[in-house]
Amino acid sequence: MAVTIKDVAKKANVAASTVSRVISDSPRISLDTKKRVKKAMKELGYHPNVNARNLAVRSSQAIGVIMPSSADKALQNPFFPEILRGIGTSAHETDYSLYISTGGNEEQIYEEVQRMVYGNRVDGIILLYSKVSDSVLDFLVDSNFPFVVVGKPYEYESRVTYVDNNNISASKDITNHLIDLGHQHIAFIGGSTDLVVTVDRLTGYQAAIKNANLPNNQDYIVHAEFLKSGGRKAVERLFSLEMPPTAMVIADDIISLGVLNMIEELGLDCPEDVSIASFNNLYLSEITRPPLTTVDINIYTLGAQAAKCLIEKAKDKNEPAKRIIVPYEIKYRNSVRDIRSLQ
Amino acid sequence: MAVTIKDVAKKANVAASTVSRVISDSPRISLDTKKRVKKAMKELGYHPNVNARNLAVRSSQAIGVIMPSSADKALQNPFFPEILRGIGTSAHETDYSLYISTGGNEEQIYEEVQRMVYGNRVDGIILLYSKVSDSVLDFLVDSNFPFVVVGKPYEYESRVTYVDNNNISASKDITNHLIDLGHQHIAFIGGSTDLVVTVDRLTGYQAAIKNANLPNNQDYIVHAEFLKSGGRKAVERLFSLEMPPTAMVIADDIISLGVLNMIEELGLDCPEDVSIASFNNLYLSEITRPPLTTVDINIYTLGAQAAKCLIEKAKDKNEPAKRIIVPYEIKYRNSVRDIRSLQ
Repeated sequence: MAVTIKDVAKKANVAASTVSRVISDSPRISLDTKKRVKKAMKELGYHPNVNARNLAVRSSQAIGVIMPSSADKALQNPFFPEILRGIGTSAHETDYSLYISTGGNEEQIYEEVQRMVYGNRVDGIILLYSKVSDSVLDFLVDSNFPFVVVGKPYEYESRVTYVDNNNISASKDITNHLIDLGHQHIAFIGGSTDLVVTVDRLTGYQAAIKNANLPNNQDYIVHAEFLKSGGRKAVERLFSLEMPPTAMVIADDIISLGVLNMIEELGLDCPEDVSIASFNNLYLSEITRPPLTTVDINIYTLGAQAAKCLIEKAKDKNEPAKRIIVPYEIKYRNSVRDIRSLQ
Repeated sequence: MAVTIKDVAKKANVAASTVSRVISDSPRISLDTKKRVKKAMKELGYHPNVNARNLAVRSSQAIGVIMPSSADKALQNPFFPEILRGIGTSAHETDYSLYISTGGNEEQIYEEVQRMVYGNRVDGIILLYSKVSDSVLDFLVDSNFPFVVVGKPYEYESRVTYVDNNNISASKDITNHLIDLGHQHIAFIGGSTDLVVTVDRLTGYQAAIKNANLPNNQDYIVHAEFLKSGGRKAVERLFSLEMPPTAMVIADDIISLGVLNMIEELGLDCPEDVSIASFNNLYLSEITRPPLTTVDINIYTLGAQAAKCLIEKAKDKNEPAKRIIVPYEIKYRNSVRDIRSLQ
């Protein structure tokens, strides 16, 4: 049974309003009374921080975090624990907890978001993904509820606060790196084209291919799920082509993991037979064989910045929409081969 | 502004009690009225599931999940996303969300748990760790709030529902595996001795050493944090001994990762110079060089079972305390060398 302000008031023999004033540390209350009320709170196990905030400003002291798919599936990609880590740190600094969705499809996620919003369960919401079309985003915009998107919103761009990398530029850079080392047959393995991040990374890859006057070979573009199994299927397809690629740009290290397994199964070697460059710099990219050349997108910072912006927004609904671009950096490791001498 | 039952009642031109009955699907309400009320709910964006549950049974439809340390630190170990994955799946099946602590030390965690309990934010709590002495556990026992421990509680064992592996037996088995392959100088690298899991794994290791009549060498027992950096320090210490170990039992794959790095830095080879066997079967244990022999403790199942038990307990406080022992299995990979022929 939760202890209420009334219980504290009764025990301390003061009015309930006096208890509220003690909680808000009002100068109108004498030190003696403050002491008496605080003693009563302690004895009853009354927890002023939360309850007071709830009474005063209806704050839930929680941030809603929305995964792109069921927690089951999403958490298989270390991107999500890493971004939760960043969010968690910012949240912790301001005494917020995290309220995490477990829904598996858009409808279920939509229901959970409604529950969070209408049930006053969270002060604001972080969307951990950005889709080309998303009823959840529409709902959040319509309801004027504080939220932040990780990734670039496909619509409402100027009205929504979001934290992203410049994925077009990053993808151009990593593709150019392969081109500079002599590769002319470069494939792109991306995630679902519903996701804006895939669209951006594909755009950057295509721009680099075009700038270098390389042929635009549609067979070299494969879309896989952001999971280990996705990478395996993609490789099967690419290596059944008449002219298989000598290098691949892969939209996520976790897909690269599957690609590396499949390359080995096919009796091929990375980087001897095929080079790989991917994205995210998940910590696993350092321990694969070979360690992966990858774009470090600073996942932790994406999360920390998203939470920081959200808390600002939750405190002040008039906070303007912001765009935060987190810098990226290519980590050069051993999965890419220089083939200029072969030409 | 949240829509209330009153708003729905007004719009549908019925009494608020009628709306409640429609929500609980009472047979006393005519189909026509039901239709009218449901239409009003939809138009107002009223969300009956949550609000009705809140009114009826004060359910939060959320499970509190308590990390052993700050989310920042804990989420560096893939154990936590994997167990969240298991919890998330069970939670999702019953429309629960997860409410995750972000506190960094025992006092902060204690405060967060109090907030969750007194603020009616969660229907129950899962402790993702078990410590030798823990004020959070004491508080949960005292307040008779539904909770489940992952790991074996050090106190209150018969009164608390918990989900664990038989860590003593698992550690005995993996140590015996090393002994069977000819190792006589076997070190143990564990996490903090505050944690019951460390105590159990150390106990199993010591039992196996004793059974095999090997000397009980205290220098071979090192405690490191459950993080990559922990493993590095431990190796430095062990390899400065006059008689360094030929094999190590390591309490967590994530420590093994640091150990492997350090072994390489010292110019040594695993398993040629030193064998490694560890615990948890994190997915990274398959991609390290060499892949790790490790005890698969079925982390996902630990989480799924914990959530299932908690939801039962939250629905019925009289549900008896349960002990669930999740089976383990040794995964034999390439980090252990058979040295019998050398003797």
